[in-house]
Amino acid sequence: MQEVIKAIRSAKSAIILTHIDPDGDAIGSMLAVHLALKKAGKKTFMYCRDPVPEMYRFLPDADKVKNEIKPGRTFDVAIVLDCAYSSRVNRTVDLKSLTGKVINIDHHPDNSKFGSINLVEKISSVAEILFKLLKKMNVNITKNIAACLYTGIMTDTGNFRYDYTTADTLAVAESLARSGAEISKIAMQIYETKTMSSIKVLGAAMYRLESSESGYVAWTVLPKQLMDSLGAKSEDLTGLVDYIRSIKGVEVAVLFREECDGIKVNFRSKFNVNVSQIAKNLGGGGHIRASGAELKGPLESVKEKVLAEVFKVIK
Amino acid sequence: MQEVIKAIRSAKSAIILTHIDPDGDAIGSMLAVHLALKKAGKKTFMYCRDPVPEMYRFLPDADKVKNEIKPGRTFDVAIVLDCAYSSRVNRTVDLKSLTGKVINIDHHPDNSKFGSINLVEKISSVAEILFKLLKKMNVNITKNIAACLYTGIMTDTGNFRYDYTTADTLAVAESLARSGAEISKIAMQIYETKTMSSIKVLGAAMYRLESSESGYVAWTVLPKQLMDSLGAKSEDLTGLVDYIRSIKGVEVAVLFREECDGIKVNFRSKFNVNVSQIAKNLGGGGHIRASGAELKGPLESVKEKVLAEVFKVIK
Repeated sequence: MQEVIKAIRSAKSAIILTHIDPDGDAIGSMLAVHLALKKAGKKTFMYCRDPVPEMYRFLPDADKVKNEIKPGRTFDVAIVLDCAYSSRVNRTVDLKSLTGKVINIDHHPDNSKFGSINLVEKISSVAEILFKLLKKMNVNITKNIAACLYTGIMTDTGNFRYDYTTADTLAVAESLARSGAEISKIAMQIYETKTMSSIKVLGAAMYRLESSESGYVAWTVLPKQLMDSLGAKSEDLTGLVDYIRSIKGVEVAVLFREECDGIKVNFRSKFNVNVSQIAKNLGGGGHIRASGAELKGPLESVKEKVLAEVFKVIK
Repeated sequence: MQEVIKAIRSAKSAIILTHIDPDGDAIGSMLAVHLALKKAGKKTFMYCRDPVPEMYRFLPDADKVKNEIKPGRTFDVAIVLDCAYSSRVNRTVDLKSLTGKVINIDHHPDNSKFGSINLVEKISSVAEILFKLLKKMNVNITKNIAACLYTGIMTDTGNFRYDYTTADTLAVAESLARSGAEISKIAMQIYETKTMSSIKVLGAAMYRLESSESGYVAWTVLPKQLMDSLGAKSEDLTGLVDYIRSIKGVEVAVLFREECDGIKVNFRSKFNVNVSQIAKNLGGGGHIRASGAELKGPLESVKEKVLAEVFKVIK
């Protein structure tokens, strides 16, 4: 942590990057770092391959996130957030061409330590790590920074429900609330703005639910044609796989969605199964209870391959 | 609070009561009080008209809750939890015949102060009030008591999301986690044990969703026949009305369910509408953002009457 602080303090410009298909922790953490550095008079540039999902656009400076980096631009440091591997930023982005110093801040247990400096802690969220980092740097946690960090913690813990939600996590959340994070407003903005299309997708997904004989594994498949006919976008699927897991007796939940460039697969487990292992075996990654992978090929054969892998691991 | 402490300290026996159709705060709070008094060597009796919902049965001593009181039994005190009115216990239960001292502990803003002593605080949950009370009484918060109180706070705040979730609420949650409440286990037990029938009801409810032209009010009607055909029970509906509210643009969500003895109506609002007023006008009660009422009559005419009341209030 001391090394990170030194590197950030001595930098005049920073590019902040996070992963494709960004979630609340990716966006919240990126904006928090940006706001803190901006206040310290540093130049910042925020990059994410994919657009900021609509539900996070209420966060301060969310409109300043870019999805392109002009060729030839360089920065004193690159701060990479919530990425277990540097490829999670975007395979076409070469970190080494952007800077001589890569700071990798992450909480994934399988982090590959790709940075020049690596701050990897296996806690609830990158936002929780950043809270501790900013406190150590004596950064004043403004209301805006608090809102961004709260968003990261709240979303990455599934509202303080997942495994790695600890008393420390709640203490950080308390402190952010005291710094002005408006808990119920933030939750409303993020969770209570579901689109009609997401509700329709949920209905369809529950209707199409399949499960193993014992009900231990349950999955649903969303072909592109169905998604298109419902007018559904990728972000309409947030939380769907958690919903499948929430059924009694279901230990492993799998969501398949067909996109233009392949099949995205999300895994969740409840108590026992390490789904990061399943994802890894399929070329993906993630956490013990939440992971994902992207596969090429026709939907039906991907489904067969993935389920075979699931049944192999749980055996 | 001092009066409550004195009354509890001097009592040798206590009946603890909570409301019909009990939720996590009702059950968690009742069990926490019971465990604390039991440890202090007092005789306790827990009463609730309706059975403990399955998802709360993992809590310690949940199997000791009774739904009958032998005629003629008396107690030194009656502790009534989470009831705005004494009628919420059960219209056929006469508190005065049970005891000379009724302690009313509640957090509903419309509490009628029906007790001999009233401890009413407008905070997140009765569990949060009880935490402060037990601390003041120097009760050691055991792991079991912590689990019960955590359940109350977590469920009544919708996972730390609703309006009255404050930094203080999070501080209490943190303290309960440090006392041994197993956050993710409790959350899993309560939220991740949905029944297949509840999933089917959700699908049906979303399919049957109706809304006003602007989408400001949305509702769904679940006739008894439909519920029966899906094998769905009352507890399968937990969270359904919150789901309706979570749609973008929906300010007021209404759920109608036909039961043997009438129509139960649940209201939720997002930002502006005071649904406790709507419920009150219909003979019910509750909070600004969450309320309910029970009406007699055929489903269709109840629906018309209720929606007319909604549109009158939001105008």
